[in-house]
Amino acid sequence: MKIALSQQNYIIGNFEYNFDKIQKDILKAVEQKTELIVFPELAVCGYPPRDFLEFPDFINKCLNSIDKVREMTSTHDIAVIIGSPTINPVPEGKDLFNSAYFIYQGEIKYQAHKALLPTYDIFDEYRYFEPVTDFKVIEFKGIKLAITVCEDIWNIGNENPLYTVCPMDELSKQDPHLMINISASPFDYTHKEDRYEIILKNVERYKIPMIYVNSVGTQTEVIFDGGSIVMNEKGGIHSELPYFKESLQIIDSNDLYGDNTPTVQKSNPDKYELIHDALVLGIRDYFGKLGFTKAILGLSGGIDSALTLALAAEALGPENVLSVLMPSQYSSDHSVNDSVQMCKNLGSPHKIISIEDPNNAFLQLLKPHFESIPFNVAEENIQARCRGLILMALSNKLGHIVLNTSNKSEAAVGYGTLYGDMCGGLSVIGDVYKIEVYELSRYINRNKEIIPVNIIEKAPSAELRPNQFDSDSLPPYEELDVILYEYIENRQGPKEIIAKGYDPKMVQRILRLVNRSEYKRYQTPPMIRISRKAFGMGRRLPIVAKYLG
Amino acid sequence: MKIALSQQNYIIGNFEYNFDKIQKDILKAVEQKTELIVFPELAVCGYPPRDFLEFPDFINKCLNSIDKVREMTSTHDIAVIIGSPTINPVPEGKDLFNSAYFIYQGEIKYQAHKALLPTYDIFDEYRYFEPVTDFKVIEFKGIKLAITVCEDIWNIGNENPLYTVCPMDELSKQDPHLMINISASPFDYTHKEDRYEIILKNVERYKIPMIYVNSVGTQTEVIFDGGSIVMNEKGGIHSELPYFKESLQIIDSNDLYGDNTPTVQKSNPDKYELIHDALVLGIRDYFGKLGFTKAILGLSGGIDSALTLALAAEALGPENVLSVLMPSQYSSDHSVNDSVQMCKNLGSPHKIISIEDPNNAFLQLLKPHFESIPFNVAEENIQARCRGLILMALSNKLGHIVLNTSNKSEAAVGYGTLYGDMCGGLSVIGDVYKIEVYELSRYINRNKEIIPVNIIEKAPSAELRPNQFDSDSLPPYEELDVILYEYIENRQGPKEIIAKGYDPKMVQRILRLVNRSEYKRYQTPPMIRISRKAFGMGRRLPIVAKYLG
Repeated sequence: MKIALSQQNYIIGNFEYNFDKIQKDILKAVEQKTELIVFPELAVCGYPPRDFLEFPDFINKCLNSIDKVREMTSTHDIAVIIGSPTINPVPEGKDLFNSAYFIYQGEIKYQAHKALLPTYDIFDEYRYFEPVTDFKVIEFKGIKLAITVCEDIWNIGNENPLYTVCPMDELSKQDPHLMINISASPFDYTHKEDRYEIILKNVERYKIPMIYVNSVGTQTEVIFDGGSIVMNEKGGIHSELPYFKESLQIIDSNDLYGDNTPTVQKSNPDKYELIHDALVLGIRDYFGKLGFTKAILGLSGGIDSALTLALAAEALGPENVLSVLMPSQYSSDHSVNDSVQMCKNLGSPHKIISIEDPNNAFLQLLKPHFESIPFNVAEENIQARCRGLILMALSNKLGHIVLNTSNKSEAAVGYGTLYGDMCGGLSVIGDVYKIEVYELSRYINRNKEIIPVNIIEKAPSAELRPNQFDSDSLPPYEELDVILYEYIENRQGPKEIIAKGYDPKMVQRILRLVNRSEYKRYQTPPMIRISRKAFGMGRRLPIVAKYLG
Repeated sequence: MKIALSQQNYIIGNFEYNFDKIQKDILKAVEQKTELIVFPELAVCGYPPRDFLEFPDFINKCLNSIDKVREMTSTHDIAVIIGSPTINPVPEGKDLFNSAYFIYQGEIKYQAHKALLPTYDIFDEYRYFEPVTDFKVIEFKGIKLAITVCEDIWNIGNENPLYTVCPMDELSKQDPHLMINISASPFDYTHKEDRYEIILKNVERYKIPMIYVNSVGTQTEVIFDGGSIVMNEKGGIHSELPYFKESLQIIDSNDLYGDNTPTVQKSNPDKYELIHDALVLGIRDYFGKLGFTKAILGLSGGIDSALTLALAAEALGPENVLSVLMPSQYSSDHSVNDSVQMCKNLGSPHKIISIEDPNNAFLQLLKPHFESIPFNVAEENIQARCRGLILMALSNKLGHIVLNTSNKSEAAVGYGTLYGDMCGGLSVIGDVYKIEVYELSRYINRNKEIIPVNIIEKAPSAELRPNQFDSDSLPPYEELDVILYEYIENRQGPKEIIAKGYDPKMVQRILRLVNRSEYKRYQTPPMIRISRKAFGMGRRLPIVAKYLG
């Protein structure tokens, strides 16, 4: 049987746009005599629609799209598997299911509802959906299909499984010939490998092939990386669709059974190549889906803003990224020179706007109210906020979106000024630790010098007072980032981290800084997610609390 | 049997502080020969602990508190029912239960795990907890107790129930004599009535009394209002604990059975009295739990900041709230005069700091970069951001927390400046619609004029350009707020709202404004929640989307 995998990039709630895409791939597949086409999870509305799912009008529009797909199958000889919410017909339980529709000959033949509802990290599915508890294999042209939705194939072989059921175990009792999984499975830089492993585990356990269709594209901060896979019954990769872009691929299911069937090598990109491509897509989709073309950012002469500029230039075109250099009396000459050099390297526009005048105006105005308290973080923040104000003013006047340039290490310990350098519409590297910022910058320079080497090599400084360096108040980033990783990604406690050989006082201080900075992170722009534990929706902590604080 | 209800206000993660409170009430109850004392849900750690529950160290500290309670019962003759997370002993499913511990004579006699895990609005319980499916009544001194946790009693008598099981139906098969429910049930201005109704429904259905112990206090933006209730087997109220404050009450369970038992009248506070008391507690706990005493806010001469000042003055003491009047060339004289009058009425300090100098410095600095585009929102926002910068600078220098003064109507349609009037540590009235702002202001003035009548009566204006009024670009608040309520609280679609008789174009424009302002609300301070659908954690929408937009 000829089966098409349609790996598409949707806009949440833009039903016309999404259906248009779906329709185009159906027609292309029909042209090539495809018998079945498979679309990702919640394709009609885009994933994750979040609380839009609570609006009956939104659900009606989803079902309207399903109806249009149904109509297409009455005039075209093709079956369609596609994701959409379904209304739960019984009053008990949540009002919706998260379903894979099987549509053929103008009829909805079957809806496979999702049983395992991810409710962790960025996921909130039990907020909306009722888990299904009965499972059915359906037959199409003599092939018995076990259709599942995303998480349903993930609960096997775990030592500490999140769920008490395994949908494929149930379905396998009905002797299916082929597994089809429709997904919206988000990227992090380790997820590609996990996904391959889980597909392989399923194929090995049930001894039948799997067609796995993932969506692609960024939804605010969450990246879906595509990489849909067809695995034959022996665990060989028949096809691997591209990462970070749309794709339509047609395969013959006969090629998935028996020995000597065609296979390809598993792709094996480097961590920084993956993060780079993910961040570029993250920027591109944020702007493209909101209908913006131009970005603006503060270029300080430091490595964070330099990396952000390089990524934005690649995503939007260098001519569409405006760098603003905003020196103060504390800025070193090389900060300006290096920044200008970088804009030249890219062919990207820049402006130099000194903050001295407004900064002095504030200092003079506030002096009588500062009660003779010496220069401290208040004055430092005034500088950062003057810069934020200038960026926002230009953004408002010229219609650019401000890119935030803070990194994950800073965001973790709260080294940043709310409404100052923490401002912006999108945080590009807010999920990238400082040591990863260096690696990514070297990756940016892999072919030629885009980020001036001087920017990469100089000691990090906020330049908010004379001779200020990050190392004055923080341990070296090689240590800081490991401690942060253990706490944030691995949820280790102080005892476990100290046991790794770190100074107890330093560990306690850092964990306290992380917890006490929650109020700042609450107000930061969305951060493109590239790790398995990013700040934002996937990490939910109270502001008012006193744990390790 | 003598039973104590301990309605307490915890700090999330402050185990020493929480245990100290628990210990004190146990000792007080022991002194009065109480046989059983009941504490709220997750009392040992405070509710909601959110992702702290993912940290094994945090769970160990919870269990350590339980162990200390256990030890107390080996030296004191009292049984304790108290909420804590429990580790799920089987690997399948989530790692934790949300439990009511029954502790007596130095032993954990039983743990009643929660079955219904609220995962909607502000709740995320299935993110952490496994729902229990078996139920057991336990006997203590001849009385059979049906112990449940919060939501477990809420799934009865609903036309569209959220869950497929009813824990009390199961427990009632074992013929309990008394229901005990431990809760952390958050306030909204309709919730008191709902709670009474649900307790009554349970008592009527199972024909036994209920002891319902709720926590009290604000956790960041969520208010727990107390109001614990003891209801006798006939549905009469034996006791109603106070709202918005801690309380320890000891009752005799013999008074809950038979006719002619002592009862009290149900309290029946007015909507605005409830909201007022809730907001005052919201401010007080935010400051108190973070260890701050002083607030600062921008007093514009409008009603929103006036109301915020009045509430803050009541919560913190008028001497602890610093008002900053920041006039510009567009400010009317009466704005300053009315504001000064209000500070006098309260006996509260103020400063007058004109924004003209820094505002002019920015305008001059940016003129060459503004490409001759005429005065527009960019210049308006510069004014608002100069004000935000001044407030934050004073906050940083003097150690005050900035109170945000935006109302819900503005936050809904995005009428506010990010990093300008949308700045602050806490939004006091961000869940209060403009028409409710007027009602609350009249409530503030119920005994004497605190908010000058002129502030209440004048036409609302942002005063960011000459002769600007809210009504220039928005429908009257009487209409706007109803449309917003239908969309936000009731999740009505455009069709349903238009059918109520509103202009279709206006409705579409307003819903579009709401959806397109998500990026602004993402970066606003936490808003004290007083309605059943507040912005923030309880309303989760994507920024990048195109639904009704």
